[in-house]
Amino acid sequence: MRPAAIPFTPIALRRVEPVPSDLEIAQAADLKPILQVGEELGILPDELELYGPHKAKVRLEVLDRLRQAPLGKYIDVTAITPTPLGEGKTTTTVGLSQALGAHLGKRVVTCIRQPSQGPTFGIKGGAAGGGYSQVIPMEDFNLHLTGDIHAITAAHNLVAAAIDARILHEAGARDEQLFDRIFPKDRKGKRRFPRTLRTRCERLGLPARDPEHLSPEERRRVCRLDIDPAAVTWRRVVDTSDRFLRGITVGQGEEEKGFARETGFDIAVASEIMAVLALASGLQDMRRRLGDIVIGLDRQGRPVTTEDLGVAGAMTVLMRDALKPTLMQTLEGTPVFVHAGPFANIAHGNSSILADQIALRLADYVVTESGFGADMGMEKFFDIKCRVSGLVPDVVVLVATVRALKMHGGGPKVVAGKPLDPVYVEENLDLLRKGLPNLQAHIGIARKFGVPVVVAVNGFATDTEAELELVRAASEESGAEAAVVCRNWALGGEGALDLAEAVMRAAEKPSAFQFLYPLEATIQQKIETIAREVYGADGVDYSPEAERKIEEYTRLGYGRLPICMAKTHLSLSHDPALKGAPRGFRIPVRDIRASVGAGFLYPLLGKMATMPGLPTRPGFYDVDIDPETGRVVGLF
Amino acid sequence: MRPAAIPFTPIALRRVEPVPSDLEIAQAADLKPILQVGEELGILPDELELYGPHKAKVRLEVLDRLRQAPLGKYIDVTAITPTPLGEGKTTTTVGLSQALGAHLGKRVVTCIRQPSQGPTFGIKGGAAGGGYSQVIPMEDFNLHLTGDIHAITAAHNLVAAAIDARILHEAGARDEQLFDRIFPKDRKGKRRFPRTLRTRCERLGLPARDPEHLSPEERRRVCRLDIDPAAVTWRRVVDTSDRFLRGITVGQGEEEKGFARETGFDIAVASEIMAVLALASGLQDMRRRLGDIVIGLDRQGRPVTTEDLGVAGAMTVLMRDALKPTLMQTLEGTPVFVHAGPFANIAHGNSSILADQIALRLADYVVTESGFGADMGMEKFFDIKCRVSGLVPDVVVLVATVRALKMHGGGPKVVAGKPLDPVYVEENLDLLRKGLPNLQAHIGIARKFGVPVVVAVNGFATDTEAELELVRAASEESGAEAAVVCRNWALGGEGALDLAEAVMRAAEKPSAFQFLYPLEATIQQKIETIAREVYGADGVDYSPEAERKIEEYTRLGYGRLPICMAKTHLSLSHDPALKGAPRGFRIPVRDIRASVGAGFLYPLLGKMATMPGLPTRPGFYDVDIDPETGRVVGLF
Repeated sequence: MRPAAIPFTPIALRRVEPVPSDLEIAQAADLKPILQVGEELGILPDELELYGPHKAKVRLEVLDRLRQAPLGKYIDVTAITPTPLGEGKTTTTVGLSQALGAHLGKRVVTCIRQPSQGPTFGIKGGAAGGGYSQVIPMEDFNLHLTGDIHAITAAHNLVAAAIDARILHEAGARDEQLFDRIFPKDRKGKRRFPRTLRTRCERLGLPARDPEHLSPEERRRVCRLDIDPAAVTWRRVVDTSDRFLRGITVGQGEEEKGFARETGFDIAVASEIMAVLALASGLQDMRRRLGDIVIGLDRQGRPVTTEDLGVAGAMTVLMRDALKPTLMQTLEGTPVFVHAGPFANIAHGNSSILADQIALRLADYVVTESGFGADMGMEKFFDIKCRVSGLVPDVVVLVATVRALKMHGGGPKVVAGKPLDPVYVEENLDLLRKGLPNLQAHIGIARKFGVPVVVAVNGFATDTEAELELVRAASEESGAEAAVVCRNWALGGEGALDLAEAVMRAAEKPSAFQFLYPLEATIQQKIETIAREVYGADGVDYSPEAERKIEEYTRLGYGRLPICMAKTHLSLSHDPALKGAPRGFRIPVRDIRASVGAGFLYPLLGKMATMPGLPTRPGFYDVDIDPETGRVVGLF
Repeated sequence: MRPAAIPFTPIALRRVEPVPSDLEIAQAADLKPILQVGEELGILPDELELYGPHKAKVRLEVLDRLRQAPLGKYIDVTAITPTPLGEGKTTTTVGLSQALGAHLGKRVVTCIRQPSQGPTFGIKGGAAGGGYSQVIPMEDFNLHLTGDIHAITAAHNLVAAAIDARILHEAGARDEQLFDRIFPKDRKGKRRFPRTLRTRCERLGLPARDPEHLSPEERRRVCRLDIDPAAVTWRRVVDTSDRFLRGITVGQGEEEKGFARETGFDIAVASEIMAVLALASGLQDMRRRLGDIVIGLDRQGRPVTTEDLGVAGAMTVLMRDALKPTLMQTLEGTPVFVHAGPFANIAHGNSSILADQIALRLADYVVTESGFGADMGMEKFFDIKCRVSGLVPDVVVLVATVRALKMHGGGPKVVAGKPLDPVYVEENLDLLRKGLPNLQAHIGIARKFGVPVVVAVNGFATDTEAELELVRAASEESGAEAAVVCRNWALGGEGALDLAEAVMRAAEKPSAFQFLYPLEATIQQKIETIAREVYGADGVDYSPEAERKIEEYTRLGYGRLPICMAKTHLSLSHDPALKGAPRGFRIPVRDIRASVGAGFLYPLLGKMATMPGLPTRPGFYDVDIDPETGRVVGLF
């Protein structure tokens, strides 16, 4: 059934004990040429654009060739409500793929997000999995990769520059001057109508005819965007954790006097362009979405788009190569698509639809990962990503750790960089039992969508048999198909064989997948459905600002967009302090924002951090080039 | 003599009249696989890292293999003082290479700079040459390329984030807290000395011993950088023409209250890291230079470096791939190295030493281009770049146009985007004759360095025979080896055959190359030598600030660095309004800055624009994806 390919050759792990650092493991690994990884998967050499020997972009033409290919099984890896340390979701995603591909002889693709470079140099370190379940080369994965985030940064900041320059130039020009500049005469004295302004004219109800025939009033309406500087919502982005850019004043140069305004930078992956990249179905669809982005309002309160600014075409050109997923490999030589990396609160937190589309036509099993817990990235995977793509998920893998469950049971606060409290490394069945409702709630959320759930307990050396057995029993009691312990951090794919077999069994069940809400529901209905059904809230309270936005967005026709809740990932509720499975709370909606290009509304349930900071001694202190070998050191 | 290679196959131009747009020519071109381009030049497939089918990075290992190879002829293309339209220097550089390689059977490499993306979307358009003398694919050349400028942006802004975060964290921490954070205990309770702090200790005269044995005073001196916020000279960068970032206030977020300070962004190519990239001789040399960068002063007025911040290793890791030149090709299939693109006023304005080093060991002729006129990029090519590399130039090609010479003769102002005055398109021998001193002055500058000069008159259809003859005669009179008319914009390499033959003849002359000044001269002596010998000034006047800096830099040991004059390129003097070959003026030095990592001092002779703006209707208005073909349109 699958397209012709050369036989898959697994890479044998040369495991060492104790398990070395992630970077040491990654650098000691044998790598296949990426052309071979592609060919083993059924990608033709001409369909790959190499970026060095171990990375390649996959040309979208592959989708045309495989239009008739059957779809593989579609598996989403999610997690319970995590501690700030994370519960090993990417490690499990990679380990499951290694088990399926390198041990059980299945054709498998891992589809994951590209990480931001900012946190890599701050606290977080790498994001390529860990131990013997990693994507390699890990330096490439964590830094630059094939430039997609850089392209997003370039496209995003071009829009920002265009906004402020336009405000400045409009202020200093009379209508006729503006018209002469926007519709310049060519050498033959003729003015042309650029494609980008046709869309604006359509929206304004004006004919896109010979510009000379426009009336003075029509000329003004087309050429003067009249952007309200106080209503610009488009900020700037940088892929660096730079807290001093959170709140800034721009336009304080000599030549911009009188136009200073307050704004700020977000980290690049928070850009709406990242969400567009992840949801686009092709070049033309990306072009349309990029042009639909609303950057703010004019002085009459009407949305102003990137198309109005004439910049959407240039954004698309900057993003042209970024639209192609990047092929890499795991430590055991199975193929990985790395593509897009939107936030999982203000955006939907899933890797790209295009990568999944290609992968599902090439592989028996496609393992992807959604951001944060089942209440966050998984809900959005279903209600936003699958709705846009039309793809139907087959299995949810829910990653849990005994450590996190003990925290949910009331264990002391877990803080990154600080030693763990003894309760987390000694048997404590009571604390663990009290934390189980969080796991059970997450299982329940996945089941609401009609998708079979397999619980993957990421096992630590300090977990006891009794503890693991307690988690297993509770999982199956709550309707999970299975609950298995994974040891793939220490063992690679071999440590995820039980998980792989449980997933394969679950994937054979007929899918009863359904969305949580219909798009036709009102904005309030959609928000309340998620709040009650997913978060377990009693109801929703809207601020006056949120109510005003609901009215405005409904009027503008955005009411039919899906909802992307910007909620903390540290609790099922909106309050990060509420662990376990909280009950008896109401969700406060502070404000609602629109990502019209990406295609969703995002209610804000609190303050979302969109620009990380650096600690006193950032991770970059240890990062260097070994003077002898030229290799990277210190990137953990 | 040359390393084994497959035979070179020229690409035949399919010329059309009238000459289509640059993008149309570029997209209609036949491209060789870049592996073939490399092999024809003698680069082994393993020494290339492909970035798609038509770009590749060249691994520096090639230099080890070719250590014994003889050096080819080294040709620098420069220009007279240009009009704001530019005189076709890149077009001449590419055309000369096409003539040598595709018509005269010589092994040739073109070495040019990577352009900034900012102006591409503003006024300037592409920078890949023009007409039938271009580097292709031109979209790739102008956008992203292989990510080097993005890497510079990432490394630069990581330093900026590190500076402000450090100021904030130091303010909130007692000495002992700071020590505990900078020298954290590992699992065994031991504190290690990171490599990056060893350099700081050496400079402070402290032993880099077990941190536990440092006295409280020593701990404070190592850990507390005590950066003076008012003395931070490191700004941020973005590769977008964003004038609203020229002057900004950062640190206005909730959590940075009390730490706001004024700063700004420059365009990414203005980063000192770009100058470092262009001057580095290898990975270790780049590591050293990146660590030597001075970001500002502490409260005692001592320089603070990136090494002090612990960030130089991470910068090097971010720049690791950028250090490899990118291989591309001309329209006639000859090889091109694109690498680095520093400013030619605040920096030295030349492509990388590494690209030239590799090229000279592979080719009979290496044609490179320096920024602006002979007074600017060429002087720096000799006194900075050749001094660092030890390479000896063989020929200077000086590009002139009748149009620019008429401007120097007193013709009306030439403004980009505005129609040309008739004097520029009709015969006017008088105006032309009056402008010749500019050409003759530039010939004289090159001859001061002992290098033979060939004048390349970039011929326009409107130039008359009498005009061209006048330029030829004046050139030879002033000591040029030859002066030839080039038609390569319209004809490709065939139009530069006369130039190629003249260059080959000139290259056979024994080189009498010498620097203009010795490094041992004082800062003032060096500045005055350039001002008198190159610019034709009567002397130099220093502001009190400049005098203070001379004293300070001399004290800090920077007095032995070469000088990189930050002067306008629109005049031989410091005043852009003075055309021709001005006399009887003195050069005012407003201030002096130090690029300690790159390794030069740059006196400021006026306000240098380091962040372009966008016009009312930027070039991006026309840039888009063709909905039918997916090809880029409108990138001229």
